[in-house]
Amino acid sequence: MTSTHFIAEPHTPQVVITREFNAPRDLLFRAHTDPDLLVQWLAPRPLTMTVDRFDLWDGGSWRYQHWDADGRDYSFHGLFHGEPSPDGIVQTFEFEGRPGHVSLWTTTFAEQGDTTLLTHNVVYQTVEDRDLDLESRMEESVGDSMDRLAGLAARLAPVSR
Amino acid sequence: MTSTHFIAEPHTPQVVITREFNAPRDLLFRAHTDPDLLVQWLAPRPLTMTVDRFDLWDGGSWRYQHWDADGRDYSFHGLFHGEPSPDGIVQTFEFEGRPGHVSLWTTTFAEQGDTTLLTHNVVYQTVEDRDLDLESRMEESVGDSMDRLAGLAARLAPVSR
Repeated sequence: MTSTHFIAEPHTPQVVITREFNAPRDLLFRAHTDPDLLVQWLAPRPLTMTVDRFDLWDGGSWRYQHWDADGRDYSFHGLFHGEPSPDGIVQTFEFEGRPGHVSLWTTTFAEQGDTTLLTHNVVYQTVEDRDLDLESRMEESVGDSMDRLAGLAARLAPVSR
Repeated sequence: MTSTHFIAEPHTPQVVITREFNAPRDLLFRAHTDPDLLVQWLAPRPLTMTVDRFDLWDGGSWRYQHWDADGRDYSFHGLFHGEPSPDGIVQTFEFEGRPGHVSLWTTTFAEQGDTTLLTHNVVYQTVEDRDLDLESRMEESVGDSMDRLAGLAARLAPVSR
């Protein structure tokens, strides 16, 4: 299995996350935009996930929750800027446990022969916001989600790949 | 007249613009959210401005144009993340002359006794996008807009201030 790479330069409000998948980009795009697939990988283990709304169009809004074993929920919401497509998804992102702090996520799916390079480019309003995410074990959580996504992609991908 | 301050650290996808105004924050908020006022200051001289749409609510979208003397237009659009209020306006921003490049603008209005400190915190998807804005004379353009806003505020503010 490939691994997830994190770039978080000091003193800059940005994180760039990359991961190579043995899957076509259309499948990865579907996994990011079909709520039935999203709930199967986006929450890091052992959290579960529910989706309140997912208006997949330019200007549409989305909201979902992660749930821990004690029934505590962690809710997130945002907006899609531009029409989401395999060429890219641009969205705002806010964790409701820390209202008023917004980041901008740009997700791209680049075909590289038989594999697809997934990139999450995340910019924050401040370096402090970025650092707080890093201190909240973002790297571990996102890495775990990416592993789950790789497992889902393997189950969904054509046998020939 | 006060002046506009720019902070653009090297190698970081961010610009922070501040300007102190001799005006109450509610007036400055109005100037940012009433299209009839917006067209009086937002375009740098000698451009004029028209507003296509300005849906001032959480998830609402906006689009406007700047026009030069030869009738060429420069269009911009984006979305409001969260309910715009005097506490702050968070919006996505895209120049249609360079589609697919999106920035996140956070505008705040902080009362400081008789004056208000306006801050535009702008984060870009990449340092290259930020640098391109800086090379496109962003500092001069925004400074000019801020001067126009100061003039508008002086005309609108109560005589007692």
